[in-house]
Amino acid sequence: MTMVPARQLDAADPLARFRSRFVAADDPSVVAYLDGNSLGRPLAVTGPRLAGFVAQEWGRRLIRSWDEAWMAEPVSVGDRLGELVLGAAPGQVTVADSTTVVLYKLIRAAVGARPGRDEILVDRGNFPTDRFVVEGIAAERGLSVRYLSAPHDSGVRPADVAAAVGERTALVVLSHVAYRSGFLADLAEITRVAHDAGALILWDLCHSAGALPVELDAGQADLAAGCTYKYLNGGPGSPAFCYVAARLQDELSQPVWGWMGAAEPFAMAAEYQPAKGIRRFISGTPPVLAMQPLKDMLELIAEAGLEAVRTKSVALTEHAVALADELLAPLGAVLASPREAAERGSHVTVDHPRFAEVTAALWQQGVIPDFRPPDGIRIGLSPLSTSFAELERGLQAIARELRSG
Amino acid sequence: MTMVPARQLDAADPLARFRSRFVAADDPSVVAYLDGNSLGRPLAVTGPRLAGFVAQEWGRRLIRSWDEAWMAEPVSVGDRLGELVLGAAPGQVTVADSTTVVLYKLIRAAVGARPGRDEILVDRGNFPTDRFVVEGIAAERGLSVRYLSAPHDSGVRPADVAAAVGERTALVVLSHVAYRSGFLADLAEITRVAHDAGALILWDLCHSAGALPVELDAGQADLAAGCTYKYLNGGPGSPAFCYVAARLQDELSQPVWGWMGAAEPFAMAAEYQPAKGIRRFISGTPPVLAMQPLKDMLELIAEAGLEAVRTKSVALTEHAVALADELLAPLGAVLASPREAAERGSHVTVDHPRFAEVTAALWQQGVIPDFRPPDGIRIGLSPLSTSFAELERGLQAIARELRSG
Repeated sequence: MTMVPARQLDAADPLARFRSRFVAADDPSVVAYLDGNSLGRPLAVTGPRLAGFVAQEWGRRLIRSWDEAWMAEPVSVGDRLGELVLGAAPGQVTVADSTTVVLYKLIRAAVGARPGRDEILVDRGNFPTDRFVVEGIAAERGLSVRYLSAPHDSGVRPADVAAAVGERTALVVLSHVAYRSGFLADLAEITRVAHDAGALILWDLCHSAGALPVELDAGQADLAAGCTYKYLNGGPGSPAFCYVAARLQDELSQPVWGWMGAAEPFAMAAEYQPAKGIRRFISGTPPVLAMQPLKDMLELIAEAGLEAVRTKSVALTEHAVALADELLAPLGAVLASPREAAERGSHVTVDHPRFAEVTAALWQQGVIPDFRPPDGIRIGLSPLSTSFAELERGLQAIARELRSG
Repeated sequence: MTMVPARQLDAADPLARFRSRFVAADDPSVVAYLDGNSLGRPLAVTGPRLAGFVAQEWGRRLIRSWDEAWMAEPVSVGDRLGELVLGAAPGQVTVADSTTVVLYKLIRAAVGARPGRDEILVDRGNFPTDRFVVEGIAAERGLSVRYLSAPHDSGVRPADVAAAVGERTALVVLSHVAYRSGFLADLAEITRVAHDAGALILWDLCHSAGALPVELDAGQADLAAGCTYKYLNGGPGSPAFCYVAARLQDELSQPVWGWMGAAEPFAMAAEYQPAKGIRRFISGTPPVLAMQPLKDMLELIAEAGLEAVRTKSVALTEHAVALADELLAPLGAVLASPREAAERGSHVTVDHPRFAEVTAALWQQGVIPDFRPPDGIRIGLSPLSTSFAELERGLQAIARELRSG
């Protein structure tokens, strides 16, 4: 196979111009940033946006900004996220809490809505937090957990779910894109399989939101959660999002009863009366400052178009696989992600027994992928900020380190 | 009584110089900001701090900052908060989540540690979120809630707790400073009373942290929670703090099992094993960006000295009471806060049937207290950013509005 050179791919990339919209994208000390799937780069407008927010909305409008803007933001930012990224009609998404807390609230709500069923079905390949939350809830509610185990370089398929789901299943918890292998699950078909068995389904979108079109409404999803600091560039520890399909909202009850999820937050009421609609899934005061960076990234995605983002993401992962085949396979590294682009999200994982030490050496050189146990280097490709040349520099550096060992 | 004029009080105030350290403290469009107890003003360094954080720690160090700084911050910022503000030795405080979520986790942990006891004792005067969380947990765990009802202009005293606590009490949940009346509870003595009955106690510090010395360790407190956007000036929706006394940490188990509270977060382990110490009370990825503004306010408090902050707070609330007596009482307003400075936090509430409409009119003029149902104006006095002249302008404006009605 003849690989197209990175320079040529960059020259032909219609999204190449977006790279300059990020902070220090051409900082020479960062040779290759291949971890936008863990922490997206900040946009160039984020610093000034925050400084302006402090000076004006917080500093001059002071508490009045709660009435003028902030009370609406967990839902208005959620609506924009729903429209541009999640395939969700308005009134179904909020932005608040950490992903872990959102998972806790949604899983508790879901199992509470299926009282005759005593099992939660999860993938062992789910990110640890998802499994931990499920196991904690199962322990406290007297439920059992049933595990799916997909191949290391793949993920959960509809037939796997069909074989495991049944009349005991209250809820299925799966990742849309697997955090390690990058496998992209068939959201609509697996949702259908779960529903056929009478179960609810919760999708973890951490590794897909912002990198490819998610179709929650079209796929009839029930619940979804995800973070905003990966492909949504919200900054370290930025708030999570929470999706609850409109048809379920008034039937579900989440356990963390806070004033901001009450029907009338400022009535200081004697008893908790949950708000109608998606607001009942909010608990405490929403993280307004922390959700500001996300707003600009959503508009950048709107400008680029999510289909174009996905097209570039596929081109990047294709190039990553080709480079891994050419440069790393001869040195004993093994691809741990699907070969079919249609089955991949926006990262590619390669395994080699020496990758723990290799990753440490790479970081010293400004080549920054991340490491996932036991022996994987994860190459995260954030379509609006990663260039093909950067990707190539990164994989060449990995090969160099492997050869030098 | 002859009141000392505000100008003279400001001239003699050793902390007066700190006012200029806040954004737009002399913005002429804000005639009087009396709501620093709901949302503290930003420090002048906050905008540049955030812009610098985006450019450098996030923008250039990228994911490496998790190793270099951020993983430590929930505890290192917590330790500094403990030392300067909460009277807590290191290793007992984290910064993360919303106050509501922290309350949920701590109350669940506490009732789980007192399995033979089926009652939670709370004050009806607690902020709604505290009551809502308690009631939600009681409903799900089959516990009952017992309510204390203090007088409208006062709060809970040791004898009230002694009369209500008993062998059924698992946990007592109280506010250190009452959100409406401003009553300052006797933390050490009430804690002793709760412990004598074998109960645990959780203190809500939202309305005291940063305005007066809190002595959690000296008072033998078990658990505490509070927000950082009031007297700690962390910004809208900034993260909460969570205190668990060292002696209890390994005995308590919180319900939201997340990867960041696990013993080895990056091991991607098969099973949740909680971290030792205070880290087990963390759940998801900590809100790193959102905790940055707090760091500067803590250093400002260190520079001023918390005892001096309290001294000024007392002088401000004394002046507020004197002004209310002189200007508002003749117009039918009634003080709804303690007259004794030793029994007050840093805000004063005054009631009048017309105060809902008066507050709306005041906001239009740049006079900004807040309103609390059914008929209270709450005058919040943030000691490092509020001047006596500002307070006086505010109370004169309230009187003017009452007279014009």
